[in-house]
Amino acid sequence: MKRIIVDMDGVLADVYPRFFELYEEETGLRKTMDEMIGLKEGEAFPELYRWVETPGFFRTIPVMPGSQKVLKLLNETYEIIVISMATEFPVSLTDKQLWMNDNFPFVSWKQVVFCGNKSLIPADLMIDDHFKNLDNFDGETIMFIQPHNINKTNHHHKTVSSWAEIEKLLLPD
Amino acid sequence: MKRIIVDMDGVLADVYPRFFELYEEETGLRKTMDEMIGLKEGEAFPELYRWVETPGFFRTIPVMPGSQKVLKLLNETYEIIVISMATEFPVSLTDKQLWMNDNFPFVSWKQVVFCGNKSLIPADLMIDDHFKNLDNFDGETIMFIQPHNINKTNHHHKTVSSWAEIEKLLLPD
Repeated sequence: MKRIIVDMDGVLADVYPRFFELYEEETGLRKTMDEMIGLKEGEAFPELYRWVETPGFFRTIPVMPGSQKVLKLLNETYEIIVISMATEFPVSLTDKQLWMNDNFPFVSWKQVVFCGNKSLIPADLMIDDHFKNLDNFDGETIMFIQPHNINKTNHHHKTVSSWAEIEKLLLPD
Repeated sequence: MKRIIVDMDGVLADVYPRFFELYEEETGLRKTMDEMIGLKEGEAFPELYRWVETPGFFRTIPVMPGSQKVLKLLNETYEIIVISMATEFPVSLTDKQLWMNDNFPFVSWKQVVFCGNKSLIPADLMIDDHFKNLDNFDGETIMFIQPHNINKTNHHHKTVSSWAEIEKLLLPD
């Protein structure tokens, strides 16, 4: 069975809406998606380094539209492994597993990995939003478009902007 | 560089002394190592399923004698990856990474993996106390003797009872 590595933040977890909300709660100002383009998450929101150390933060992040339905279908055809580079942020670890249990109960804890180096786990395909992960991966790659990667076009990864596109690519009729 | 997978509980973390202590605090009774022989951890201490769901529990577990010194030396010669099958117990995840940072600061967060299936990560050698992990591993194996595995002799794994023995095996003069 073909193994697919699926990233959490920016792929299953729709982080920007929650970043906008928290930033507005703290400052009274609303940022826009246009302002995010080309900036790394931590450049767009320096507050992020504080947020990720706050218990409960990750559990409040919304699910990427369509991801539940499509990942459930993929889980019937492929070996799905959800991986998050989270060991750098110890406080996030518990919340991230609880978030998976809350939102993706069909993904067993046996299919979840928290680590600091995605290249440890061999797989056939990787769905991710970061070049640092996709560029170092040996198999097929799908880049999930997010504001921080959208204007970087000089690469060899397939790109998608939605889970509906992933469904079309990986589960053709 | 040869990659070694090192288990946390029962190998780096000396779980039984803490189990005895907690059991005594709760019941006033002291169990002995002899009573543990041949029992799985959860059979010896049914309380364990409650303890692992208690924030802070894992952070109070003592370090296996000698493990800090020897792992630091191994880390200079081998690629060390510390893996814990912890995604089943979300509350434990944060404490386990903090425990690593507390006690093994020379092991980077990039070298730590929390998962539910150790066979996801290929390596040359595995040091573990559980047959379920060692038996399914393709490379060399070293079983760390613990009360739950001590009377099971019908296997093909090298066995050690201390980190001094690991040092002799893997860092000969």
